[in-house]
Amino acid sequence: MNSMQSDTYEKVMDLAKRRGYVWQSFEIYGGSAGFYDYGPLGAALKRRLEDSWRRLYCTENGYYEIDSTYIGVESVFNASGHLSSFTDLITVCTQCKEPFRADHLLPPSVEVYGASSEELTSMLKDYSVVCPVCGGALGPVEEYNLMFSTNIGPGTMRRGYLRPETAQGIFINFQRLLRFNGNKLPFGVAQVGRAFRNEISPRQGMIRLREFTQAELELFVHPHKKDDAGFETFREMEVPLLSVARQEERKEPIMVKLGDAVSEGIIAHETLAHQIGLCWTYLLKIGLDPERLRLRQHLPDEMAHYAMDCWDAEAYSERFGWIEIVGIADRTDYDLKAHMKFSGEDLNVFYEYPEPVHRRVTEVKIDMSKLGPLFRSDAKAVADAIQALPPEYLEEDPIKVEVEGKEFNVPRSLVSVEEKIVEIKGERIIPHVIEPSFGIDRILYMLLEHSYNEDEVEGEIRRVLRLNPHVAPIPIAVLPLMSKQELISPAKRLVDDLRKRGIWCEYDEGAFIGRRYRRFDEVGTPYCITIDYQTLEDSTVTIRERDSLEQVRVALEEIPHVVHNLIHGIWDFEKLKKS
Amino acid sequence: MNSMQSDTYEKVMDLAKRRGYVWQSFEIYGGSAGFYDYGPLGAALKRRLEDSWRRLYCTENGYYEIDSTYIGVESVFNASGHLSSFTDLITVCTQCKEPFRADHLLPPSVEVYGASSEELTSMLKDYSVVCPVCGGALGPVEEYNLMFSTNIGPGTMRRGYLRPETAQGIFINFQRLLRFNGNKLPFGVAQVGRAFRNEISPRQGMIRLREFTQAELELFVHPHKKDDAGFETFREMEVPLLSVARQEERKEPIMVKLGDAVSEGIIAHETLAHQIGLCWTYLLKIGLDPERLRLRQHLPDEMAHYAMDCWDAEAYSERFGWIEIVGIADRTDYDLKAHMKFSGEDLNVFYEYPEPVHRRVTEVKIDMSKLGPLFRSDAKAVADAIQALPPEYLEEDPIKVEVEGKEFNVPRSLVSVEEKIVEIKGERIIPHVIEPSFGIDRILYMLLEHSYNEDEVEGEIRRVLRLNPHVAPIPIAVLPLMSKQELISPAKRLVDDLRKRGIWCEYDEGAFIGRRYRRFDEVGTPYCITIDYQTLEDSTVTIRERDSLEQVRVALEEIPHVVHNLIHGIWDFEKLKKS
Repeated sequence: MNSMQSDTYEKVMDLAKRRGYVWQSFEIYGGSAGFYDYGPLGAALKRRLEDSWRRLYCTENGYYEIDSTYIGVESVFNASGHLSSFTDLITVCTQCKEPFRADHLLPPSVEVYGASSEELTSMLKDYSVVCPVCGGALGPVEEYNLMFSTNIGPGTMRRGYLRPETAQGIFINFQRLLRFNGNKLPFGVAQVGRAFRNEISPRQGMIRLREFTQAELELFVHPHKKDDAGFETFREMEVPLLSVARQEERKEPIMVKLGDAVSEGIIAHETLAHQIGLCWTYLLKIGLDPERLRLRQHLPDEMAHYAMDCWDAEAYSERFGWIEIVGIADRTDYDLKAHMKFSGEDLNVFYEYPEPVHRRVTEVKIDMSKLGPLFRSDAKAVADAIQALPPEYLEEDPIKVEVEGKEFNVPRSLVSVEEKIVEIKGERIIPHVIEPSFGIDRILYMLLEHSYNEDEVEGEIRRVLRLNPHVAPIPIAVLPLMSKQELISPAKRLVDDLRKRGIWCEYDEGAFIGRRYRRFDEVGTPYCITIDYQTLEDSTVTIRERDSLEQVRVALEEIPHVVHNLIHGIWDFEKLKKS
Repeated sequence: MNSMQSDTYEKVMDLAKRRGYVWQSFEIYGGSAGFYDYGPLGAALKRRLEDSWRRLYCTENGYYEIDSTYIGVESVFNASGHLSSFTDLITVCTQCKEPFRADHLLPPSVEVYGASSEELTSMLKDYSVVCPVCGGALGPVEEYNLMFSTNIGPGTMRRGYLRPETAQGIFINFQRLLRFNGNKLPFGVAQVGRAFRNEISPRQGMIRLREFTQAELELFVHPHKKDDAGFETFREMEVPLLSVARQEERKEPIMVKLGDAVSEGIIAHETLAHQIGLCWTYLLKIGLDPERLRLRQHLPDEMAHYAMDCWDAEAYSERFGWIEIVGIADRTDYDLKAHMKFSGEDLNVFYEYPEPVHRRVTEVKIDMSKLGPLFRSDAKAVADAIQALPPEYLEEDPIKVEVEGKEFNVPRSLVSVEEKIVEIKGERIIPHVIEPSFGIDRILYMLLEHSYNEDEVEGEIRRVLRLNPHVAPIPIAVLPLMSKQELISPAKRLVDDLRKRGIWCEYDEGAFIGRRYRRFDEVGTPYCITIDYQTLEDSTVTIRERDSLEQVRVALEEIPHVVHNLIHGIWDFEKLKKS
């Protein structure tokens, strides 16, 4: 899959650090595990990944995006279950005070799924596990909540938590969002932003962060209408599926058409399959390597307790193996029900049928002016008891009913029965939620790894990031062939012109041209424009393409148009060569 | 300034809430002061304000943007001074437990500036101040830190804080950023993102938030080179300045050319004036009302102790008066020096002179082989004393020097003096920082207030947000004149087409066309496209402009091009009418 000998993670991270993609946070203060800063190139790449996601999900597909707070009040996470269940079981070394996830210290053969803290405490004893750092004795296993907590305002009375996912901010705004959508289902609401998990002791670099960026979509659908008009365009799309069945048979993923996956019952329903297709579209669009991607269904024991079917998009990393970058789950009505219960608000939706439904009902009328004098204080209870009787009992005379152990005989003449057709316009339902959740930082790292290449150019190893033009942080560089004023001036004018048009364009002079090309290859710049002496004669420049190393001469005045088309994928370089 | 009778804040917030701009956070759990969520329209408006800022500052002006963590470790805020000084003095009611800012409870005539907590405690006593909520006795005044604090990892040993400003994330990455810029000054680094201030008890709605979004630029410049080539294009720009002098004379702001403001010493230097000009450019570009904006210089007692000159851009709000929306300060070398001291890292920059400087130096050589035997253990001290003498003393024979009260006579023959020219390539300096800091949420609210208008259309009050096309959340709506399939189909095709081109376009059918226009006027949609029966005949549609209510017929196939030009301000509606 990747033929390089040494560790790509190290190479990628070295490049990322050196060239301004990713830096360890608080480095001058010794750093802190699980925190990374994005340098100028990393921040730009991240923003382009987010914008590309927004463009596909929100602008093109019409899902709405909101922006809710990062700090949440306690009630929210009490309802969502995060306060009680978003926990790891930890043990702290009694000597060196280092904390560990208890289940990670036991031999892999030991079944720890679902074990309580007490059970894990004794398992650690049974296996004589000691602190892997200092050999000290381990303390008792305890629950540790993975949310960062804080206080809101002075005093300690009002707890707040940094959100562990963006989703809850959408659920608690459900009523307003429903109204925004004209009280109609289905609709989707997205958020792109930070989320926080106070990991015990993260050790996997950019793969396990305490602070990370999610792009999440919560799609609210009728619980029994998970067929999906939007699925049509995805029916023929082939994706590499690794179903539960194939995992149990220890088989590789297999290319399946999404339509077939639904009809064969591999994917639970069309809405989920539609979202899998949209996710796949995104992952390829930003330039991940399809050979290093797969869609894996959750095994029953890894699925959240509220989810009914869940698929992860996984990307392959040389060091870490297959890593989840997207989770796509049917969360059912779990979240809305929970918030309904805890807030006391009505989060039902009145679902209007496309056509009203007509239903035959039996209407029982009782002549209370006669029933009242007959049974006095029991009259109301007797009437209710008659209403509750199955229709066939109403044919008898007298009608016998029992109220609190006492029998009453009601003359048939006091009761009339009518059959009526009533029109039912709709029903009240709690929507189900289908949620694709993207881990932007992992996607960014995976994209760097999948894009990283070494080849030989002019007898030297060339490091190159083969990033797509529309996500590359610096899509264009302008280089005067030599550091001469007559070449520098038109080069700088072109840079200014492109920047005014909203294109991040860098200028570089000084080193030999080959050396400068290499510098831009390394940060993934797809196109370098060179101003040379011919430019002064005929107002043409060369555009050099990063991957093919080919060059084309283009009229200077055409450059803004050409650059726009190349960056937005309207043209490719082949097309430019022919034009 | 604003002729409306009732409170615009209420009207704007009512619209904002009803139509999906801004919602109180955690509303279903009773809300929490200082927290707001952005609904679909608010989130889009906010993003457009941020993107517009990025485009101007980063893409066009070449400042870099980074993205650092929201949680910071304790050392960062120890160095920055936030741990010790980012505090308010509070008193808590002993009965109802409500907290208050102590200085806010004293009569306005009382001078509280710089008072300690002990002094404030006795001042409250002296003025017999009681709890304004319940009348209870107030507790002693105490320091209250405005940062949200949390713990990183298990245990309570590692404190972390939510950043109170984005700036520190830039300062602590200074070395890497300097290297990214080729070790050259000046350069600017921006961040756009959340910051957090744990306000005691915020009561000003969207004006005082506990969680807010900043766009900050830290511009690193040579401490003695605050003239600025980029200032040239701003020299003639006229802005409403309210200097310290004019404030002291209780005068109104006056329109001044930025070039004159620098030469007259009103603004400290060109770099600051350049940033004031860039800020003004941004505020007008997004559509704030220039009649309700001013630039006010900080009075000496409101300036941060490290700042040397500071200007606020202020916007006028009917309810709140003049509100700071941007602060532009010269922070000097305060931050870098602090981080240098606390981290032990060298944050100096070697500043290379444009041309090396040549300096005449006198080199004094002493023949130690003769001086040593002459003065034994005093020889070293005697030699140092000779080196320290002014050149004219070296002409005497013997040369007299004093070491620790003892006089030594040194034969002139042991000392030779040479004059030399040395080349000095540069110097080591700590850069100064010029910082424009934008409060995006306040800008967003002010933009809503400045854009809010009521006029009369067809005998009814029309509420309209006059948002610029390039920031309006929904720039285009497509409306079939009537709910007929033959009009609905082409309308929906146009919506799909525009969305595929990256334009947020809404579709609406059902109500009377006038009613639908009104709905889009209210959310600020500048252009509505209507599909009518003439469309079916000649493939033209009407574009209606929100502010003028005028309509123009345009060929359907021209729409993507026309819409693109209108949204990006390449054309205005007048131009379209004439074309």
